[in-house]
Amino acid sequence: MTDQPSFDSDFRDRLHELFAWRRDVRRFETRPLDEATVPALLATACMAPSVGLSQPWRFASVRDPARRAAVRAIFERCNADALALQPNERAGLYARLKLSGLDDAPEHVAVFVDPLTEIGGGLGRATMPETVSYSAVLAIHTLWLAATAQGIGVGWVSILDPEAVAEALDVPPGWRLVAYLCIGYPTDHSDTPELERAGWERRCPPDDFLLER
Amino acid sequence: MTDQPSFDSDFRDRLHELFAWRRDVRRFETRPLDEATVPALLATACMAPSVGLSQPWRFASVRDPARRAAVRAIFERCNADALALQPNERAGLYARLKLSGLDDAPEHVAVFVDPLTEIGGGLGRATMPETVSYSAVLAIHTLWLAATAQGIGVGWVSILDPEAVAEALDVPPGWRLVAYLCIGYPTDHSDTPELERAGWERRCPPDDFLLER
Repeated sequence: MTDQPSFDSDFRDRLHELFAWRRDVRRFETRPLDEATVPALLATACMAPSVGLSQPWRFASVRDPARRAAVRAIFERCNADALALQPNERAGLYARLKLSGLDDAPEHVAVFVDPLTEIGGGLGRATMPETVSYSAVLAIHTLWLAATAQGIGVGWVSILDPEAVAEALDVPPGWRLVAYLCIGYPTDHSDTPELERAGWERRCPPDDFLLER
Repeated sequence: MTDQPSFDSDFRDRLHELFAWRRDVRRFETRPLDEATVPALLATACMAPSVGLSQPWRFASVRDPARRAAVRAIFERCNADALALQPNERAGLYARLKLSGLDDAPEHVAVFVDPLTEIGGGLGRATMPETVSYSAVLAIHTLWLAATAQGIGVGWVSILDPEAVAEALDVPPGWRLVAYLCIGYPTDHSDTPELERAGWERRCPPDDFLLER
């Protein structure tokens, strides 16, 4: 089809609200999502752009309690190491931050990239092979926005040893972890990042990040 | 604020249409965008999530003709190299593909990551330092969707030597290129990727990419 729908100013205003209220969620209700929700979100994720149409995103829906426990143990170990790296003046605040929703979120989805996929014939990634991982990130963000529009929260856990997670989930050789997502109903909503509310960091004015060339 | 707007089914349907019609655009009208458009899009981009609230995205608005010509020359060289890597049976089709809108797009924005930024205190990126680049990708996708909702097209050029582009644009040491974006009004619209219309690759069913664990 070539007859693009026009997006009106009301839609654009709501889209801006969606960007403003999409949070990295770490506090979830334990009540389950409908069985169809995660598959539908993953189908939406696959509408994302990808380098050379390589579609290198790979998803593992993690429900087995033993595998979840293994991922949880990897997080605990990596988070203890990260705490030890914090300077003294920030260590106390770091230790008080809640950095994952692994215990309560009803759905866990590990997102991998298959960097050697033959789909797309290698187009667009000879000089910047990292664009396959970037494509998986675009799929994650698509899922994240679609979930937020349904009142569903997503938390991206990155305090993980990616090789240990790949092993714990027994994924095909060569797949690399991009993100481990916790998905479920959030316990609260805010238009301010949790790390800003907790006093860890603040958002900067966009002009700070722009050069003219 | 904690009083999240509710996103209704009409909004979710339009959001799905936005995902469906957002294209990687390589064919642009030359007519300029309003002067306020790119700064507003970059401000929206900065609403993206980032690891540890590190906001590692850095933008260069490229307007100087000599710098644009340098980027164009880097693209030509990298694209010739990429063509030479294609197997014989795909080389003819590759050569016919239009892979960038560098000539016509009225606005060029180079997106970099500052991987050593101290913003965010390193939180969340000790084991997966690539998450800073991923944060810049989230900003790009936010910009891309906001632009599409305004009828403005974005094309992501990745067939570039990232170090050569950083040098051509004289950006601070340590910044790494994530994407070079062409921005302007698209000459046409479609809900099908250009590479699919050209017969290069097809989209796969989402179930092909999902494991249960």
